[in-house]
Amino acid sequence: MTTTQTTDIEPIVETAATASHAWAATAPAERAVVLSAIADALDAEEGTLVPLADAETHLGRTRLSGELRRTTFQLRFLAQTVRRAAFYDVRIDRADETWPPGPRPELRRYRTAIGPVLVFAASNFPFAFSVAGGDTASAWAAGCPVTVKAHPGHPRLSRHTARTVSRAIAEVGAPAGLFSLIEGEQAGVQALRHPRIRAAAFTGSITGGLTLARIAAERPEPIPFYGELGSINPVVVTPGAARARIEEIALGYVASLTQGAGQFCTNPGLLFVPADSPLAERVAELLHEVAAAPMLNQRIADAYLAVAHKLATRSGMQKLCWPQDPASLAPRLLHTTLEVFRADQEAMAEECFGPLGVVVSYDNLTEVTAGIVALPGQLTTTVHAEEDEARSNPILALLADALTDRSGRVIWGGWPTGVAVTHAMHHGGPFPATTTPAGTSVGTAALERFLRPVAYQSWPQHLLPPPLRDDNPWGIPQHRDDS
Amino acid sequence: MTTTQTTDIEPIVETAATASHAWAATAPAERAVVLSAIADALDAEEGTLVPLADAETHLGRTRLSGELRRTTFQLRFLAQTVRRAAFYDVRIDRADETWPPGPRPELRRYRTAIGPVLVFAASNFPFAFSVAGGDTASAWAAGCPVTVKAHPGHPRLSRHTARTVSRAIAEVGAPAGLFSLIEGEQAGVQALRHPRIRAAAFTGSITGGLTLARIAAERPEPIPFYGELGSINPVVVTPGAARARIEEIALGYVASLTQGAGQFCTNPGLLFVPADSPLAERVAELLHEVAAAPMLNQRIADAYLAVAHKLATRSGMQKLCWPQDPASLAPRLLHTTLEVFRADQEAMAEECFGPLGVVVSYDNLTEVTAGIVALPGQLTTTVHAEEDEARSNPILALLADALTDRSGRVIWGGWPTGVAVTHAMHHGGPFPATTTPAGTSVGTAALERFLRPVAYQSWPQHLLPPPLRDDNPWGIPQHRDDS
Repeated sequence: MTTTQTTDIEPIVETAATASHAWAATAPAERAVVLSAIADALDAEEGTLVPLADAETHLGRTRLSGELRRTTFQLRFLAQTVRRAAFYDVRIDRADETWPPGPRPELRRYRTAIGPVLVFAASNFPFAFSVAGGDTASAWAAGCPVTVKAHPGHPRLSRHTARTVSRAIAEVGAPAGLFSLIEGEQAGVQALRHPRIRAAAFTGSITGGLTLARIAAERPEPIPFYGELGSINPVVVTPGAARARIEEIALGYVASLTQGAGQFCTNPGLLFVPADSPLAERVAELLHEVAAAPMLNQRIADAYLAVAHKLATRSGMQKLCWPQDPASLAPRLLHTTLEVFRADQEAMAEECFGPLGVVVSYDNLTEVTAGIVALPGQLTTTVHAEEDEARSNPILALLADALTDRSGRVIWGGWPTGVAVTHAMHHGGPFPATTTPAGTSVGTAALERFLRPVAYQSWPQHLLPPPLRDDNPWGIPQHRDDS
Repeated sequence: MTTTQTTDIEPIVETAATASHAWAATAPAERAVVLSAIADALDAEEGTLVPLADAETHLGRTRLSGELRRTTFQLRFLAQTVRRAAFYDVRIDRADETWPPGPRPELRRYRTAIGPVLVFAASNFPFAFSVAGGDTASAWAAGCPVTVKAHPGHPRLSRHTARTVSRAIAEVGAPAGLFSLIEGEQAGVQALRHPRIRAAAFTGSITGGLTLARIAAERPEPIPFYGELGSINPVVVTPGAARARIEEIALGYVASLTQGAGQFCTNPGLLFVPADSPLAERVAELLHEVAAAPMLNQRIADAYLAVAHKLATRSGMQKLCWPQDPASLAPRLLHTTLEVFRADQEAMAEECFGPLGVVVSYDNLTEVTAGIVALPGQLTTTVHAEEDEARSNPILALLADALTDRSGRVIWGGWPTGVAVTHAMHHGGPFPATTTPAGTSVGTAALERFLRPVAYQSWPQHLLPPPLRDDNPWGIPQHRDDS
């Protein structure tokens, strides 16, 4: 890992702040052109970017090439969302002398950019959650300049991505302050404390995220901190589903658990199965056939092995699939009963970042529901059930309530990995899945994290921002209270 | 002040939690009926509530009767917003095998209630920001049960309001857990730490708010804390406006500053005037004629006098209107120059809760803009300018940018007190005006603070919540991505 440090963040953050008002005030069409130009520039560099990423992350060129496509799609999809301009949420209330609680003045409200944003890049998605990833793209879309703190896991890729982005911004004539890259933990903390930074986003570990969240909260002017921290993404298989589709479920689980060496925040680390089903054994068999895959870096591999060892040595935990070589990065499967799990839930529900699953066998779905309720917040929860079973068994509705209560995305009969970039995606959840349960870091709603409302009272037309004017020069949606 | 303590909050919060799922799942029409029934019950009790409020707050029956009307209007206005059901923000993306970054599953997302909410009542609006005030009403509207921690400044009113609310809830057949009242600081802190509480709202002092915000952040599962803390609501009068409308501005300022004995979070505590204008003297003359008004309670009166004394003794501060009796609650006016103010800004911009204004005279609007930029976040900022002046003077655009950057509501030619309850109102701002700059505690957008998104992936129709179903049983707005 690099130990490069950006020594002076001051001019970098000041340049971002200087670009802030102008970028927030760009017309949607203009802002969309910049996002698309950055996407085009990144696509054009695929031949350099993907090999660099592969050398630094070992994720393989096929996956990385797909991830780059996803990243540039995300930029263009956000560009389209910017053009639609619904996110301004324009509300116009005319003055009304007869308003029931007393005369009201004219009020015009919209949501504008919050100001310069600091993004902490993640290691496991060197494109999609890194320099020009979802946090950066959605902050740009909201009208915010972005400073990215590079992840030390892929410094050369980060720098080449940054050069590509900056060149695209210059070529399209947008202000240079729209984007900057800084390196080093200290520089990241300095930027997070800088008064000109108005929001921050982070994807990574619970420990790292909480440290940064505390720094953001302890500033003289605290700022919103959107951290996506950790999740074990429980999956519940009902007796009916285990009977009807054991092979499909076992194959699906193993594929989701081992994809990308298990290095996904949506990795399904916890699997609840009926005690009388051979599902756990079938998963173990299939898992034995999956080869060890290289992990992102030595630090992550070491952490995987350490947490795996810690989980395996809990009393009542049994190894269903475990490599003989303790240093092997091969997939691992542990097993315990719901009774043991519930008695030791805090330790047994620790996230193991990598290809390790914990199977919990249960006798009673009501007890599973109680176990879910006691879990920390999750990005996703999943249930595999049969539709007729769901119609006849009222416990399933209670289970669904519990899953919804504890997670931001509830999946029926699928798998949590593979987070689609769409309007309806929510990639967030109760703490610690995210530090702010209303925020998502994937999908078009992600840009809403970087907006704040402002109301203009009795303001002259020619001084109003364009979204609020009666002549509506940008032709955007305006909601008028003419009821 | 009372020292009554609710001794056991456990059963109270548990009852709220038990009501949580059912209330979140009520149809909009049903939820609206409950809100309206509570409004009706409060109106019917006006004859008891207003005298009780007057006895405990000294705000006068006319104002209190108007405030009660505003409070019940707010409940009915939110009921209407619930019926419109736009706040669910339903997004439905069909499954798409051809989605560019890879096949996507069906996704249906909406915003649902965050769970049981704890509201800390304020003292200065015993109806509108207290037991059944804006925070409570908007949390109910979002689908959340509410526990209110009563303000000790009006305990008898709080209890009678609570009884009225609970009776209305019972009569309309809604679950009792929808509402509860607790008393005492300790009980409030215990409730804030209770794992079943999922969000909290507060209106009050910076010190109190920050203490509670820290407790919310340090829970094992931190929760959103919406605090509305403090604001001095700067007003800038341009040279043109001071020449054209000196009498109108002086009268307006004095009325806004002294309304309700200055006990408003939108009180205009800071007035920038041109150095060559006699505006400050005219304000002082008018202020001399305003009689002292009783304040809410002794603690608030003592704090007013202490902060007033502290401000008056800053070097370079001059008394323009000051009662001879140091214990008098009469209005006060201080004056300084922009140069002195900027050199001592942190101390001179301290909020003085009560009828005290600080007039800052300036030579140069650019310097005023720099002073505004250096202020902490505000609920409101106001400019009095002439329209032709705004057309010809580019500095006014920069001033408008600065006002927008530092506040949630920017007012042209009006006064910040009198916060209208409308769709476009934003009553929030950068820290410390509010702890979460995107949240408002007045207007229909206030309910958005108590929602969180959940996405359902590939879920069977009959198990989906009604807002997400294709048959749309509630007939609410659904956005489909059929592009």
